[in-house]
Amino acid sequence: MECKRALTEAEGVEEKAIEILRKHGLATATKKSGRVAAEGLVNAYIHAGGKIGVLLEVNCETDFVARGEEFRGFVHDLAMHITAAEPRFLSKEDVPADLLEKEREIALEQARLDPKNAGKPPQVLEKIIEGRVSKFYQETCLMEQPFIKDQNITVGTLVSQMVSKTGENIRVRRFTRYKMGEGLEKRSSDLSAEVQDLLGGNK
Amino acid sequence: MECKRALTEAEGVEEKAIEILRKHGLATATKKSGRVAAEGLVNAYIHAGGKIGVLLEVNCETDFVARGEEFRGFVHDLAMHITAAEPRFLSKEDVPADLLEKEREIALEQARLDPKNAGKPPQVLEKIIEGRVSKFYQETCLMEQPFIKDQNITVGTLVSQMVSKTGENIRVRRFTRYKMGEGLEKRSSDLSAEVQDLLGGNK
Repeated sequence: MECKRALTEAEGVEEKAIEILRKHGLATATKKSGRVAAEGLVNAYIHAGGKIGVLLEVNCETDFVARGEEFRGFVHDLAMHITAAEPRFLSKEDVPADLLEKEREIALEQARLDPKNAGKPPQVLEKIIEGRVSKFYQETCLMEQPFIKDQNITVGTLVSQMVSKTGENIRVRRFTRYKMGEGLEKRSSDLSAEVQDLLGGNK
Repeated sequence: MECKRALTEAEGVEEKAIEILRKHGLATATKKSGRVAAEGLVNAYIHAGGKIGVLLEVNCETDFVARGEEFRGFVHDLAMHITAAEPRFLSKEDVPADLLEKEREIALEQARLDPKNAGKPPQVLEKIIEGRVSKFYQETCLMEQPFIKDQNITVGTLVSQMVSKTGENIRVRRFTRYKMGEGLEKRSSDLSAEVQDLLGGNK
């Protein structure tokens, strides 16, 4: 009833309705924990005595599978893989559109500037670009990367194999990778510094 | 020289210049690792057999301090604190302006609707709101939270104490906290579901 009133007040906008409910002090009270649909594990891996760290969540359907040795080993392998292979995204779908567009642009320019490609028809250049984009995915997306313990399969295939083994839907949900000092490295990257210096000199 | 040419071509815009350099295949070549200005540790903590996990990076000035037992204990305490206290931000400055504005608005409405505040001057209401905002910071910002092992000090104070002890600048740089299934919980939160149902019913 309170919800309905809030919604009318909010003219049907969900976010606004929740805000109105919170103002009336109802929101915190009504939040019940609710049944969690997914089971799984959160796991971490620390490398080189604290220089690189990975945190990840992998979901499955039952706690029984989550507690099993096979699933735990699988999650541990994934954490080690992420530590070594440095994926930036989970899957192709997670690559931001503008970043992909930029990669494509750079690949096109590189292909055009390459003397080997002089006089080649646009379809051939397009093939070259598709190849580079595919390589970009293999380098940056966890699911597309060759698995470090078996380079013949991708991590995506490894996940599919676990689905077959356990008979449950399995999903790598998210990961974070920290490299000690990596943000500060960027600042002292030669290229950026050089460009900065020149920009300063132009002023 | 190549940089200068790229910058001219890019009309002085750094990002564009780097892009042009990358197109010419120079960017990857010039990237040297560069001296890292900061030392420190990346650490993780896994709670409840894989239900909650925390990853964090803490910086200090020398590897000597980073390898010391005291610093390691301090970083471990911080990881445990984050696991238990669920901070959402590092410090006050990291709270997005629109979120803060919304909290302030909600606090104002709550104060206005409270019969106890009827007839009180605006300055008094403002004081109440300031108090609520300050509480919001204490609940959500790591540096403002009372330290779980000593509620008399904030985490910010704990960091200052380590600065005194080690004689080095120490900074909690970043952290990530995963709770298994937390994104899926949201979906089944009663309030959101109720609002959604009503929205559906209105269509």
